[in-house]
Amino acid sequence: MVHEKHQIVESVPNYSEGTDDTTVDRIVSEIENTKKTKIVDVQYDSDYNRAVITFVGTPKGVFQANKAAALKAIELIDMNTHQGQHPRIGAVDVVPFVPAKNITIKECNELAIKFGEFMAEQKVPVYLYEKSAKIQKRNDIDNIRIGDYEGLKKTIESNPEHAPDLGPSRFHPTAGATITGARDPLISFNINLGTTNVKIAKNVAKTIHLRSGGLVNIKAMGTELEGRDCVQVGISNINYKKTPLYRQMELVRIEAAKYGVPIVGTELIGILPLEAVLNSFDYYLQLESPKKLKEEHLLEHYFDF
Amino acid sequence: MVHEKHQIVESVPNYSEGTDDTTVDRIVSEIENTKKTKIVDVQYDSDYNRAVITFVGTPKGVFQANKAAALKAIELIDMNTHQGQHPRIGAVDVVPFVPAKNITIKECNELAIKFGEFMAEQKVPVYLYEKSAKIQKRNDIDNIRIGDYEGLKKTIESNPEHAPDLGPSRFHPTAGATITGARDPLISFNINLGTTNVKIAKNVAKTIHLRSGGLVNIKAMGTELEGRDCVQVGISNINYKKTPLYRQMELVRIEAAKYGVPIVGTELIGILPLEAVLNSFDYYLQLESPKKLKEEHLLEHYFDF
Repeated sequence: MVHEKHQIVESVPNYSEGTDDTTVDRIVSEIENTKKTKIVDVQYDSDYNRAVITFVGTPKGVFQANKAAALKAIELIDMNTHQGQHPRIGAVDVVPFVPAKNITIKECNELAIKFGEFMAEQKVPVYLYEKSAKIQKRNDIDNIRIGDYEGLKKTIESNPEHAPDLGPSRFHPTAGATITGARDPLISFNINLGTTNVKIAKNVAKTIHLRSGGLVNIKAMGTELEGRDCVQVGISNINYKKTPLYRQMELVRIEAAKYGVPIVGTELIGILPLEAVLNSFDYYLQLESPKKLKEEHLLEHYFDF
Repeated sequence: MVHEKHQIVESVPNYSEGTDDTTVDRIVSEIENTKKTKIVDVQYDSDYNRAVITFVGTPKGVFQANKAAALKAIELIDMNTHQGQHPRIGAVDVVPFVPAKNITIKECNELAIKFGEFMAEQKVPVYLYEKSAKIQKRNDIDNIRIGDYEGLKKTIESNPEHAPDLGPSRFHPTAGATITGARDPLISFNINLGTTNVKIAKNVAKTIHLRSGGLVNIKAMGTELEGRDCVQVGISNINYKKTPLYRQMELVRIEAAKYGVPIVGTELIGILPLEAVLNSFDYYLQLESPKKLKEEHLLEHYFDF
């Protein structure tokens, strides 16, 4: 784990195709065939009709891979016939640049803007979100996807509030529009509650959500879990450094206890930084502060020969 | 963290010199100057008059480094004038070979035997301990160090039960004898209790110790902590896979609660495998079993470009 020299960026591009394996494979191949990148995870399903690719690489590698994959998605996906449950505004729907190692959010922002300019050259209007937002409201992706593909396509020209940050003021004929930006690493850590009453999951989700008196870096929603005797609080944590996983866990435990309902299990989706693990290990095992666990205390840190 | 090809061994040799910086430095240098090894930690003090060097490397690197450092220690240390609080039987007192990555305990055992044969050639009698023990009692190092340096020096020739496994049946004139063997990784995880009553620490230590009804892989002792308002349960865990750190932690919590005493902090000494962290993270964050956290779920796993 001694890799001090290299800068590593994570990216999690979302494409509006989750039904046709061949199309997804061809987009994935573009990333796979770009040097200095590694694919971590590919997920797609036909309900959402959306593919989410998680990959990491050098800043140059991630930038090149996102360009190549975007060109392929523009070529293959026609938004005029696209249907799916997940909100979306274009073929290359969202392309985040996330700092992973030895790189700042500012440098990721520069990559996102360069990528946005590239998309603009392809005649795709671009909205900058999260840390790259030029309009404050666009910090939050939900404020960009107002009206979904079909709605925004109509209002982008007429409503000045819907004007893109880069590129033409009209949708690309087949690829629609694109959202890009730098954002902090996001951890999806979902907590299952021992009840079949989805209202309890929804109530607990609300109590920990940033918009309703909860934790500042947490978005949460309650859902049913198909074929299981429990419900889930689905949680996105956008700053594990300030709001560590253990705090999210223990607050859910406390709020669920109000209903006499225990935590029966949890799941982590995708990848997470080692630091997020060490933070919670430190908390539960009560390590004293000058001896907090760091990467250097792990045997694996010394494995490079 | 993708290092599948390489075999890595950990070694933690103990030398009977903790007072003279120059001597310790010269022994450390022998390891430092051996290729394919990295020193993790060097600790020595004059109370124990003992130096403990933690290092890792390829099997060949670790073997060569231990040979070179042993020759230097034989050259520089004279046990006839050695005094110290820690039990010891020789200049090169204990040399464990510990599997760290892609290597079995059997392969570490072969290294230990080869190292023992090398010491025997230097006319140092050798006792094989832990997983390398040929005599079952010698699993436990305490059964080898009976009588300490001064005692064993006298009985090694007269008492057949004290005969060495390798080498001459009499002590080396200045270097005494040596203990070597393969052992599992050991984790020192000490737990501080919120009381100044050292009896409570001793009682709690006893309840979790393998010899008195506690956990099979745990040795523990209660001690005072100089200059602090708490006492410590010092704990060695020789199998974190079967007896994970969280079990050790929670059992101490339960036993201390008998006295109304809380855990006020903990410390980890030396290095530990990432797996030991992930095990406890899984427990406290209740990850469901098919989704237990593995190295591949950590961002750092993808950092090699």
